[in-house]
Amino acid sequence: VLLTGASGFVGRGALAALAAAGHEVHALSREPQARQEGVTWHQADLLAGADIVEQVRPQTLVHLAWYAKHGSFWTSPENLRWVGASLELLRRFAAAGGRRAVLAGSCAEYDWSREVYPEDAPVRPATLYGASKQGVHDIAERFALEADLSLAWGRLFFLYGPGEAPGRFVASLIRALLAGQAAPLTDGTQRRDFLHCADAGAAFAALAGSPVTGAVNIASGEGIPLRDLALQIARSLQAEDRLEIGALPRREHEPQALVADVTRLSQEVGWSPRLTLDEGLAETIEWWRGREGRG
Amino acid sequence: VLLTGASGFVGRGALAALAAAGHEVHALSREPQARQEGVTWHQADLLAGADIVEQVRPQTLVHLAWYAKHGSFWTSPENLRWVGASLELLRRFAAAGGRRAVLAGSCAEYDWSREVYPEDAPVRPATLYGASKQGVHDIAERFALEADLSLAWGRLFFLYGPGEAPGRFVASLIRALLAGQAAPLTDGTQRRDFLHCADAGAAFAALAGSPVTGAVNIASGEGIPLRDLALQIARSLQAEDRLEIGALPRREHEPQALVADVTRLSQEVGWSPRLTLDEGLAETIEWWRGREGRG
Repeated sequence: VLLTGASGFVGRGALAALAAAGHEVHALSREPQARQEGVTWHQADLLAGADIVEQVRPQTLVHLAWYAKHGSFWTSPENLRWVGASLELLRRFAAAGGRRAVLAGSCAEYDWSREVYPEDAPVRPATLYGASKQGVHDIAERFALEADLSLAWGRLFFLYGPGEAPGRFVASLIRALLAGQAAPLTDGTQRRDFLHCADAGAAFAALAGSPVTGAVNIASGEGIPLRDLALQIARSLQAEDRLEIGALPRREHEPQALVADVTRLSQEVGWSPRLTLDEGLAETIEWWRGREGRG
Repeated sequence: VLLTGASGFVGRGALAALAAAGHEVHALSREPQARQEGVTWHQADLLAGADIVEQVRPQTLVHLAWYAKHGSFWTSPENLRWVGASLELLRRFAAAGGRRAVLAGSCAEYDWSREVYPEDAPVRPATLYGASKQGVHDIAERFALEADLSLAWGRLFFLYGPGEAPGRFVASLIRALLAGQAAPLTDGTQRRDFLHCADAGAAFAALAGSPVTGAVNIASGEGIPLRDLALQIARSLQAEDRLEIGALPRREHEPQALVADVTRLSQEVGWSPRLTLDEGLAETIEWWRGREGRG
């Protein structure tokens, strides 16, 4: 198995799960990585046309790498480069005899006009990131038919966990409360589907090991209002009084609910999350506590 | 204006029309080209990441280059490389201060379930080529919003004219009849929208010079049954007796009609074909007569 984005937020979990499942894992990252039992690390940049596929000649590809900088990934021109790099990787994988490919998509591909999203819900991305992912998916699906590849497309919803970008919702909230600061929020009635990053990685590993093809939501299937999530975190930190619910305006066009229908993941792939939200949040809070040197 | 695919079937016509309209044209081709008044030729390969945009810093981009080998372009993995190269070109064009971009799309993007196609007809490509073009379009449209580019997408239908690939419909028919051979055809009741390649190029030049954005069909707006087109060619060559109409089976899933609604092209861009089908076919027959050394 060749795993791209292996040192990333979801990639670390996928790497652990693939190695635990007994695969010979070749892990790709742009940065040098520490040695790890059962894993061969490769340092290369897909944007620079790395010949990793020809070196490794993997049977299976799990492609998670993408531009993911918090605050700019929705609109960055880097999305265009990752479309090209992803399709080039897939083309070379097929040319080198690859058989099974699993790529990372996003709930940002869907037309955000409903609350719960099965995989066959209409797609109509509202962002450049979503349009880029959808473009790769459409082309990759058609290419898989021509190249006789087994292809699955894992659509991620919302994530949290150790190593999250500090400015994202769960991370920034925990950090603010750990630092004794106030945490201003919107009204927080928006419901989102949150999955722990390690579980997201494990779901990709399970999907790669299954014969399931097409789009598959990678999510918990549970929608939680952001205010409830915030209250749960604040309670763990005895900081409920510092939550300022309603202090911030909602962003324009923010959908009220983004919740995955996980029927395909649970029934066809046969995978469900290992961690409850309680457990996952507790672990994440501990991680930030250690990291920020507080508590 | 930077014109890619400038030595190609449509590119030559676009080059002539852009130069005639007084633009400073920088023409890109992979092969060396003869000098031409008012045109600066550049030899570079977009698939190899050419830095042509940084050299030329064009205000306007007309991007026609793509993989177009007859017989294989519908399904070739090369389509994936051209998605990447096209988006990379657009990204760099915007980064270098470009303002107006016109890219070549295709009627192969549409869901082939109707007869006449306005630009807002549903898209659902049946081929890798069509899916690749549609993917570039979706991503480019969204990118144009972020990058404040004026972007138009010219959807080509069917083409004929001097320099056509010898195996394509009009070219192969003329060549067979010029050679004194029989020309087996299907029943030929399928209606197609044919435009002369010089007119297609001129339409792209007109579109580039207009402020029209979004998808615009580049076509004649007239559907002609293939058997009528064949009869017209055969009559010019006094070879009607060698047309074998009905001798070949239709391809599976071949749509009965593919005709463009050209309202946008004629009314918003204000362009219409210079050549009638009679004139265009006569010119094309003469070209092949000279080329094949017969008659």
